[in-house]
Amino acid sequence: EQWEDNYKEAAIFLEEGINNEKFTHHPRCQEELPPYLLVHNDWFHYFDLGASLVILGLGFFEAPCHAPLCFPTQVHSSIELGTLLLITLQVILKTRWIGWRDFFKHRRTLIKVFTLVLMIVEALVVLVRVDSHFRVSRSLRPIFLIDNHYCGGVRRFIRQILQSLPPILDMLVLVFFIMLIYSVFGFYLFGMVDHVYFNDLQTSFISLFVLLTTANYPDVMMRSYNQSRWSAVFFVSYLSINLYFLMNLMLAVVYDAFTRIEKEKFRRLFLHKRKAAQHAFNLLVTKERPKEVSFQHFEGLVRAYKGITSPTESYLIFRLLNKSNSGHLHIDEFYDIYNATQYSWSLAQQDEDWFSTCHPNIADLCTIIKNAVKSTWFEYTVCLIVLSNGIILVVQTAFMDSPTSNAEDRIYAPWVSYFFVALYTIEAILKLIGLGFKNYFASYWNMFDFGVTVLGILSLILEILDIPLFYVVILRPLRLLTLFRMKKRFRDVFGTAVILYPRLTSAVIVLLLTYYFFAIIGMECFHNFDLKDCCKNSSVEQYFSFVEGSNGNVYFYLNNFQSLQTSGVTLFELTVVNNWFVIMEGYAIVSGVEMSRVFFMAFYIFTMIVMTIIVAFILEAFLFRIQYKQYFSKEDEAKNLKVEVILTSEEIRQIAQARGGSIQDIAIPSNSMFKFSGEKSRTKEQLQMLMYTDEMDRWLAEAQLEETQSQAR
Amino acid sequence: EQWEDNYKEAAIFLEEGINNEKFTHHPRCQEELPPYLLVHNDWFHYFDLGASLVILGLGFFEAPCHAPLCFPTQVHSSIELGTLLLITLQVILKTRWIGWRDFFKHRRTLIKVFTLVLMIVEALVVLVRVDSHFRVSRSLRPIFLIDNHYCGGVRRFIRQILQSLPPILDMLVLVFFIMLIYSVFGFYLFGMVDHVYFNDLQTSFISLFVLLTTANYPDVMMRSYNQSRWSAVFFVSYLSINLYFLMNLMLAVVYDAFTRIEKEKFRRLFLHKRKAAQHAFNLLVTKERPKEVSFQHFEGLVRAYKGITSPTESYLIFRLLNKSNSGHLHIDEFYDIYNATQYSWSLAQQDEDWFSTCHPNIADLCTIIKNAVKSTWFEYTVCLIVLSNGIILVVQTAFMDSPTSNAEDRIYAPWVSYFFVALYTIEAILKLIGLGFKNYFASYWNMFDFGVTVLGILSLILEILDIPLFYVVILRPLRLLTLFRMKKRFRDVFGTAVILYPRLTSAVIVLLLTYYFFAIIGMECFHNFDLKDCCKNSSVEQYFSFVEGSNGNVYFYLNNFQSLQTSGVTLFELTVVNNWFVIMEGYAIVSGVEMSRVFFMAFYIFTMIVMTIIVAFILEAFLFRIQYKQYFSKEDEAKNLKVEVILTSEEIRQIAQARGGSIQDIAIPSNSMFKFSGEKSRTKEQLQMLMYTDEMDRWLAEAQLEETQSQAR
Ligand code: NA
Ligand code: NA
Repeated sequence: EQWEDNYKEAAIFLEEGINNEKFTHHPRCQEELPPYLLVHNDWFHYFDLGASLVILGLGFFEAPCHAPLCFPTQVHSSIELGTLLLITLQVILKTRWIGWRDFFKHRRTLIKVFTLVLMIVEALVVLVRVDSHFRVSRSLRPIFLIDNHYCGGVRRFIRQILQSLPPILDMLVLVFFIMLIYSVFGFYLFGMVDHVYFNDLQTSFISLFVLLTTANYPDVMMRSYNQSRWSAVFFVSYLSINLYFLMNLMLAVVYDAFTRIEKEKFRRLFLHKRKAAQHAFNLLVTKERPKEVSFQHFEGLVRAYKGITSPTESYLIFRLLNKSNSGHLHIDEFYDIYNATQYSWSLAQQDEDWFSTCHPNIADLCTIIKNAVKSTWFEYTVCLIVLSNGIILVVQTAFMDSPTSNAEDRIYAPWVSYFFVALYTIEAILKLIGLGFKNYFASYWNMFDFGVTVLGILSLILEILDIPLFYVVILRPLRLLTLFRMKKRFRDVFGTAVILYPRLTSAVIVLLLTYYFFAIIGMECFHNFDLKDCCKNSSVEQYFSFVEGSNGNVYFYLNNFQSLQTSGVTLFELTVVNNWFVIMEGYAIVSGVEMSRVFFMAFYIFTMIVMTIIVAFILEAFLFRIQYKQYFSKEDEAKNLKVEVILTSEEIRQIAQARGGSIQDIAIPSNSMFKFSGEKSRTKEQLQMLMYTDEMDRWLAEAQLEETQSQAR
Repeated sequence: EQWEDNYKEAAIFLEEGINNEKFTHHPRCQEELPPYLLVHNDWFHYFDLGASLVILGLGFFEAPCHAPLCFPTQVHSSIELGTLLLITLQVILKTRWIGWRDFFKHRRTLIKVFTLVLMIVEALVVLVRVDSHFRVSRSLRPIFLIDNHYCGGVRRFIRQILQSLPPILDMLVLVFFIMLIYSVFGFYLFGMVDHVYFNDLQTSFISLFVLLTTANYPDVMMRSYNQSRWSAVFFVSYLSINLYFLMNLMLAVVYDAFTRIEKEKFRRLFLHKRKAAQHAFNLLVTKERPKEVSFQHFEGLVRAYKGITSPTESYLIFRLLNKSNSGHLHIDEFYDIYNATQYSWSLAQQDEDWFSTCHPNIADLCTIIKNAVKSTWFEYTVCLIVLSNGIILVVQTAFMDSPTSNAEDRIYAPWVSYFFVALYTIEAILKLIGLGFKNYFASYWNMFDFGVTVLGILSLILEILDIPLFYVVILRPLRLLTLFRMKKRFRDVFGTAVILYPRLTSAVIVLLLTYYFFAIIGMECFHNFDLKDCCKNSSVEQYFSFVEGSNGNVYFYLNNFQSLQTSGVTLFELTVVNNWFVIMEGYAIVSGVEMSRVFFMAFYIFTMIVMTIIVAFILEAFLFRIQYKQYFSKEDEAKNLKVEVILTSEEIRQIAQARGGSIQDIAIPSNSMFKFSGEKSRTKEQLQMLMYTDEMDRWLAEAQLEETQSQAR
């Protein structure tokens, strides 16, 4: 019982290590342990995640919203209140054993509690009044999600943004400063000529702000250019300095801050994980052997930490760590636990083809097929087929006047469809035979090809049955993506995308939460303004003018804040920046509040910063990958991501006996050896670990020196 | 006489070394030497530069052109023919001693000769017909400038573009491929709804091409968005993949290619310069002492190479190189000649203040002033003054309704002007007294402040004399730029600009020549189309519509190709990319030739590539600077850019006597020591030399090993 708790706490230590969280909130006595373990339970985390998603999702159902999704005020505010109370309960549970003083030290929790109180009060008010007031505080809802256990990546990305902020702000000050100087000049030079863009200093400044995004160029220049050709100098110099030089320099500054932070982050995390391993280790040793961990306790830990219940797997990890083969783990061996638990294990097979046990004739045939599908000419032939398929498709489409209702037939003439789908089916079958089921589906590209082929067959069947499925048919050109396989650099691009994936997800989540934040504010401020046919006699009139049934409608009035979804699209348009000032001007005119521009400008600056960081981040990841590839060949890398452990049948039997004789998972022939191979996936951290091997030793030495010094003092 | 020629040839070797040119075109016998030296003369180069600039400049004076600049056809074609014949003469002189076979191996000269022949023929035709025909070949004129001796930086930048091209093209293929797939989808999905942007495959493709530049967003989406809110998914995913992911990846790819090329280029140049030094060395040794160069011959070389006629300066360089103090230079010492000739020398002064010889009272006063102006509070006070000046200016301007004709008075109320100009004058005087004339003007910032202050005083005087000089007065806010000095990062920005300057100049010249190329083509193709009030019933109608005197005119018809200047502005607008499709559509409609869009699309791709490279280049330079700063402190750097050589009066007397007793340049007291200090300026190459010191030794070892091996074979 006592040991089980120890395992769980050790597992929590390990998790805090990998999440770079402080170890300060651990319970200090035995009674505090059960509630502590409760809130570090996966179910608890899921529950928290669910609650924060519900809170976020409410945005779709509260007014302003689209008719089919709208909930009555009582309903959504009751749900909100309920969820908020649940979250409150969770916070109380979570902070039960933390003293008040520690509580006030933890900034994130403090903000969360403050937001909670505010929101509960507001939800109560809404429930009582049965009417929503100006509830901008809803924009703070993302805080609950960010605080969730599973959003460590998001928190890290936000921290990274905050850390790169000082140099960004410096550059922004510079940019704005030059903008201001140019506004003064612009007003003096063009104020008399151009009453639209340079009528007074404020207008002049806004024009130049928009010009920084290029969105009003060349319109902003044309009136003064008409007057004097020399006015081009003003605009060209402004764009050259502020847009082309300074904004790019900003990227450089951010990129530099970013890379330096990246490495430092890795170093800190590395040392922090070591500390975590020490803490966990101390919970697993016995009084008799205070410097070693036995397999029994180790097994308990990996069960609690990774949910590994198979004794064989635990033993494999144990053996991998136990380099000295002493049967007990020393702390130096234990440090590697993070790495060792990342492998997924399988009994190493003799690399036999699936058909080796078949009739010799069949086996021979299959061998021929195998060699064929593995050959280069096969690959080229397939690519040629895909390419000609693509060309036929494009040519046919180019001759079509419009995608008429019988488009399904026209995309390919029927025989073309049959022909190519047949070819693809043959290819898939040949590959399945030659490589075997498992090897075939081990490649993402094959999975993709297979999916598209199945889709093709399906659509043909539906076509024959006279059930036209337009959207399935036109997905066929996706097959063209297969061509990317051919070129190394294209594969690199996809490889980069895969490596970027986990961290890019964090970035996208941060972006979405930013959108949520601004969308709520936008909805609260602007939802009751209608842009349709607005802004007569202004420079943006033509965008909003609406004549029923006219072909000249530009429908810009649809870019509004009348529901969460619409706001999202509107904000994306603001992110893309082109013509964003049209929406800004529209709302400034309709609302009659000049200051409403601040919302749009703030959003631009905000997304520009996030976008710059994402660009810096793509740059960093890609360049890291290139750099890394210069160090390691594909084989070297594979070697570093793979390990092997050989167990005797005796060992396996012992494991099973120790657990009470449950040998179900693997049947054991006696006197034989079992080669297990473990593989871990390629992540940026893995690559960093390989790249910085030398430096890691240095960091370690430095950290130890520091520790010794602080102990000596 | 013979030695003089040797000096000149050795100097040419050194120059070829630094310009990374092959040594293959050196004359092989004595008779070839005079014409060879002729074409390697500075005057010859200036003449060539002038001719190529005249040829380029003709673009302003040939039809189509602006009325006051237009030359009659006979005049400009005569000038052209004359200049072309001059260039031909130069080419003949330049290649006189090169055999035909070598001639055909040199690609650049070959292209130049081909262009020359073509242009002479065309100029003759024009002169005979007294009428310009469709003369697109004029766009090749930049070739003459690129080939000029002084455009080595430009050639290097072009080479760098060509080298980064393969990865860029790969990425472009990927981008276009995805664009094509999306065009097919777009046509099928929106072809029925949106007849403007997705009417057929071609239109669909063009719309998505323009969307890649964001220039038609969100317009391109609105019609389909009006039909179904889900269509946003199509556009958001397209922009996310193609614009945000792939285009940024392109930057990463270019940046990577760029940095690798940078270092490799430095390595090659380093080895090439060594080879050049060897060649030069061999021309300076005598038969008696084949391994050493005497001061006499060294002096001849530096005279021919750098135009250094002062014997003291030559001797200082000689002493700097002659580390062994043997009185003769060994080849190992001689290798450093590139570095040694970069210092500018001056007699090291005791760091005495100018007022140290004045009356003690005055000296004391000046010392107080000196300490004052060097103190931090002085700087802060000045900044505070500048800041309040700026704030008053902005506030006053913000309250103005329009920059009325008596604006000079309004910018500052007179007393404000007087007050601040007086303050700035006092500041300048105090600094001049405290720091001395030389130290004061050693800082660019002080020069800038001084200039603005003088401008201020001037404008006040003019104002008092009732000669209002509007443009001088409004230049005063420039003073605000002084504030940048305050912050380290801002100074960094300017520092980067300074380091970038020589290479950024090359980039800008390349960009301008690209503009010239496209401008000529644009003029030849589009000059006789008038966009004024064109394009009725098209989506771009409102941009070109023109009503005399109306306030709603947008004047887009001014973005045309009716003279070289106007074409330049139009092309800049295309570079900025916003609303560029308006101009493209305008010409496509007016000319009635759908293919005319190719010109605009090609220009976009071209400038995008050049811009991406410039961005990569700013990134690289800035990051290099940051990296470099982490290696060296300001003091370390200064130490590396400064040397000292001490000469005795005896040595100086000897130099003078050897030259025939002309001791004018320095008067020599006997038995004294003269400390000379040499300083070189901070360039990227200097920094690279410091950064790569270790690696340079390795490169050298490698190169020597290779040479030994090739000799052994
Ligand atoms: Na734009
Ligand atoms: Na734009």
